[in-house]
Amino acid sequence: MATEIEHKYLVTDYSYQSMATESHEIVQGYISRESGRTVRVRTVDNTAFLTIKGACKGMSRPEFEYNIPIDDARQLLKLCPGPVITKTRSIVIYEGERWEIDTFHGQLEGLVTAELEVPNENHTFNLPPFVGREVTGDHRFANSQLTTYDALKPAL
Amino acid sequence: MATEIEHKYLVTDYSYQSMATESHEIVQGYISRESGRTVRVRTVDNTAFLTIKGACKGMSRPEFEYNIPIDDARQLLKLCPGPVITKTRSIVIYEGERWEIDTFHGQLEGLVTAELEVPNENHTFNLPPFVGREVTGDHRFANSQLTTYDALKPAL
Repeated sequence: MATEIEHKYLVTDYSYQSMATESHEIVQGYISRESGRTVRVRTVDNTAFLTIKGACKGMSRPEFEYNIPIDDARQLLKLCPGPVITKTRSIVIYEGERWEIDTFHGQLEGLVTAELEVPNENHTFNLPPFVGREVTGDHRFANSQLTTYDALKPAL
Repeated sequence: MATEIEHKYLVTDYSYQSMATESHEIVQGYISRESGRTVRVRTVDNTAFLTIKGACKGMSRPEFEYNIPIDDARQLLKLCPGPVITKTRSIVIYEGERWEIDTFHGQLEGLVTAELEVPNENHTFNLPPFVGREVTGDHRFANSQLTTYDALKPAL
């Protein structure tokens, strides 16, 4: 088990694109979306993962992640009752920190978020220029809760 | 992905105990109990598995199983909202077939089931003497639906 502590922000401009050092295509869905026990299936390029996340305690969340065969993942995505999310993940290294910028596609086209995983809740860092409002802990922006960009507009 | 095809029976007497060639202690719980996408955490002696089962089609059911660290499994069992099941699994080889007899403990003490996994739906076999009524497909006996022996009595 790992513990995930991360900050999440909305992204306000596209300057991150020229700063990105790598990018990956992600497809993901949720076998279970229940708060405190989400079960996520994700493909990242040609690899795949099954991830279970427990309940948040403050900013921390227990996370269990397992590498699985990609053919299994493609079958498991068909079991997911809700929408399957597609997004491009760009990696930007800013002042030594590894930011993950997710550009959503399909029904969520228009949504771009930036996340930074930190080693502890007191860790300090500077914000890159493309980062806007912080939405850490706002469950409307949890990937497990996302449906369409239109449904998200009141939260933007 | 594997496809699971199995027959399940109630066990009527304890003669299986003297016929068993091995036995294992199982602890299991469900992260998701939703029909068509159960997510099970199971420890078998000192090993552990995460298993996702899809929807039944006739007697067949797609099954995805992954070996996980036992310490993860112990943490994941704490995330399960429903009861954690403990049972002893005895293996009986009868006329060349490998029967799994589950003797439930705790709140389910009194329930004993026998299962036989078969290679296809037309596979024929003989029943061992300790086997009673068939309950294949009866969701009241699905492990994901079990709560207490008392709750199960009307189905026995």
